[in-house]
Amino acid sequence: MGSDNKATIVVFSGDMDKIFAAFIIATGCAAAGMDTTLFFTFWGLNAIKTGKPIKAKGFLGKMMGIMNRGGIDRLNPSRFSFGGIGRILFSKMMRDKKVMPLEEMRQTAIDLDVHLLACKMSMDVLEIGREDLIPELEDVVGVATFVKDAANSKIQLFI
Amino acid sequence: MGSDNKATIVVFSGDMDKIFAAFIIATGCAAAGMDTTLFFTFWGLNAIKTGKPIKAKGFLGKMMGIMNRGGIDRLNPSRFSFGGIGRILFSKMMRDKKVMPLEEMRQTAIDLDVHLLACKMSMDVLEIGREDLIPELEDVVGVATFVKDAANSKIQLFI
Amino acid sequence: MGSDNKATIVVFSGDMDKIFAAFIIATGCAAAGMDTTLFFTFWGLNAIKTGKPIKAKGFLGKMMGIMNRGGIDRLNPSRFSFGGIGRILFSKMMRDKKVMPLEEMRQTAIDLDVHLLACKMSMDVLEIGREDLIPELEDVVGVATFVKDAANSKIQLFI
Repeated sequence: MGSDNKATIVVFSGDMDKIFAAFIIATGCAAAGMDTTLFFTFWGLNAIKTGKPIKAKGFLGKMMGIMNRGGIDRLNPSRFSFGGIGRILFSKMMRDKKVMPLEEMRQTAIDLDVHLLACKMSMDVLEIGREDLIPELEDVVGVATFVKDAANSKIQLFI
Repeated sequence: MGSDNKATIVVFSGDMDKIFAAFIIATGCAAAGMDTTLFFTFWGLNAIKTGKPIKAKGFLGKMMGIMNRGGIDRLNPSRFSFGGIGRILFSKMMRDKKVMPLEEMRQTAIDLDVHLLACKMSMDVLEIGREDLIPELEDVVGVATFVKDAANSKIQLFI
Repeated sequence: MGSDNKATIVVFSGDMDKIFAAFIIATGCAAAGMDTTLFFTFWGLNAIKTGKPIKAKGFLGKMMGIMNRGGIDRLNPSRFSFGGIGRILFSKMMRDKKVMPLEEMRQTAIDLDVHLLACKMSMDVLEIGREDLIPELEDVVGVATFVKDAANSKIQLFI
């Protein structure tokens, strides 16, 4: 048969709205009984940062840490960012419509046993350490793990 | 077996060029005999707006409606937007090469029985009503519908 | 069964970091023994340009060629572009971490028999000729070829 009842989603983007979509789809898959994995890479790693300052050693890593600091409640949307106003606007609109904030949505995904994996290579390049990421992160893996997971999944997406 | 002869594409982006790619791939799938669904969410909803002013009730919805007004012939490309010049440039290049404009391409997709679905949650958050979207829209659905469709599809993409 | 041991990836984006992700995933798939295809379209075509000036005939094609000139070592990341500084910063960070530069990564993909295909329609619209693209490109094809490939693949992604 080849395909297990699995879903594997690469989260490459660090935009608030795309991270939002990733968690919505992942919790939807998990709620439908699928074994679901979110594979965070590059800017997507922002969605699983603790939000505390990054302890990069090199000058460049420090610079990136400052420009790219965050934690999940500091993400900006892909449109109408306006130096942070977009984030506040969206958050308000979501709250008005009784949509869960991003951090609760992440917790829901964790509660539904969605696997959170981080890409080793992009952590190395961006100088993000394991301690900069939330403890619920299941593992730090390479592309081979993703490929194996994705090849056996019914749903694979790149967000 | 698990997979029907289906294709399910999430259209998250509202960029002219990505919407273009979504319709090209969808009509390609439909022409190959696949049962094809476009699932419009967030900015992707711009591709199925009527183009008339949005009737949002709240202040924020109105603001978003103005900043994000449109209809399919008002979309800007993801690059070289230049305050609208990019759109005109692209449209001209496409016309010169006898490529269908976006609105005709959407009509072709509809004629080939591509299903157009809209995401309920993002319509709520962005304060877009059913009456703001084209009548050819088949249904307004939640993520569970997408997950079920995608899990039984040979092709799933997030655009 | 329907699904061969294949992976088909659309490379739509021309951002350095996304092209990087596309090549990493493609070489990962190929290394796992999958028959892997990269289908370059729109801005993704920048990843397989020779880097020599584009010979567009029309005024618009020339303009696009200048704004969008490049070759794989001239790509900017999707974030922190800063008029070219982002590219240099990233390249340095990758080099420091002993990550292959993009051009070598492309060569590795080619050495692992990853198929490189280009989208005819976007080449027409952007006035890019076959001679503007690297000789290792296997073929210039239409969307029907992509659909057929993707429908028989275990992994399909849109990057």
